[in-house]
Amino acid sequence: MTRVRIDLNISLDGFAAGEATPDNPMGADWDRLTGAYAATRTFQRRVLGNADAEGTTGVDDSYAAAYFEGLGAEIMGAAMFGLHSFPDDPEWKGWWGDLPPFGCPVYVLSHTAPRPPIAMQGGTTFHFRSAPIAEVLAEATATADGRDVRVGGGVGTAREFLRAGLVDQLHVAIAPVLLGAGTRFWDDLRGLDRTHAVRSEVAESGTTHVTFTR
Amino acid sequence: MTRVRIDLNISLDGFAAGEATPDNPMGADWDRLTGAYAATRTFQRRVLGNADAEGTTGVDDSYAAAYFEGLGAEIMGAAMFGLHSFPDDPEWKGWWGDLPPFGCPVYVLSHTAPRPPIAMQGGTTFHFRSAPIAEVLAEATATADGRDVRVGGGVGTAREFLRAGLVDQLHVAIAPVLLGAGTRFWDDLRGLDRTHAVRSEVAESGTTHVTFTR
Repeated sequence: MTRVRIDLNISLDGFAAGEATPDNPMGADWDRLTGAYAATRTFQRRVLGNADAEGTTGVDDSYAAAYFEGLGAEIMGAAMFGLHSFPDDPEWKGWWGDLPPFGCPVYVLSHTAPRPPIAMQGGTTFHFRSAPIAEVLAEATATADGRDVRVGGGVGTAREFLRAGLVDQLHVAIAPVLLGAGTRFWDDLRGLDRTHAVRSEVAESGTTHVTFTR
Repeated sequence: MTRVRIDLNISLDGFAAGEATPDNPMGADWDRLTGAYAATRTFQRRVLGNADAEGTTGVDDSYAAAYFEGLGAEIMGAAMFGLHSFPDDPEWKGWWGDLPPFGCPVYVLSHTAPRPPIAMQGGTTFHFRSAPIAEVLAEATATADGRDVRVGGGVGTAREFLRAGLVDQLHVAIAPVLLGAGTRFWDDLRGLDRTHAVRSEVAESGTTHVTFTR
């Protein structure tokens, strides 16, 4: 049966991204927040495409690998695709390079005019949808055909699915850093620990992996 | 050499206390926040005074026991002592019962008129001070004579010492619950993970123990 999954990196003080600056749209602390994930073998090989990269192979990597397993479809917000970044370039195919790491249909949530799907190498096709999230999820679930649907982000999209009660598994990698400001992840999620079982595990990097499972 | 230590219980979303109600001054979620600590053998025997209590003896208890080891003095806020609760009762000796668990001098921070110290059973004496925190800490450090000084709480007092850079070791027990509202602990502590080393450990209860050590 399809499960709806979310994976996110946050800081110990609960920020999913630091304060953005013009030079650094992900916030100056992005590397500190995601460094342990970026160091994994899975990220190096699968996301960066460095087939021979070593990368870490401990607890962080086991979560990183699980992140890509058993997926039938992905849903992401427009900003995570990069939809608004080059609005005047009809050739723009998003941030994810010629060989995106998904290998499945990706539904990009958008409030702008419909645009045709983009088929990429490696089995990824980007579809653009302006429907309500439950409707897009129903389509993604049908497409996934028993495999899982991942809500990839960004944090606003992830929180929207969580608050609507649509998520079966939330994995949060908590980096041992304090950002002090940025985009809060936990707000308005009271009760999630009652509907879902919570499990925590500390990786060699010091990252604490917390998983909520329904 | 004296180290200044703080121990606190917070929720996964960073609240040190839930929203207070008239019926429940510690907030309705206090039991969920502190349940794993309250279940330990150390808490049962040392704080509640039940000498034969079993209690848990795992990771949570090892932190609870360490909480009381090597202390030469304690500092706490007025509310944690209970100073404001019965202002008209000259016999009121605070919340901590006839045999407080400290066994050392306790400096209670107060903005009200000076009052004489109160000597209790078991080596605890409450002293009341309206001086700046650094000054009270200097006195407590002198008294501790090489042993540690603990800043016992509440969270406002703890944060005041942390923000002033006066704390050598912060232990935070993070309960796997989401309160959604209450008193935030982490605000304005950016940088603490740069001045202190951070170590995390998950207990059998699901509580994650995070320790910052300078």
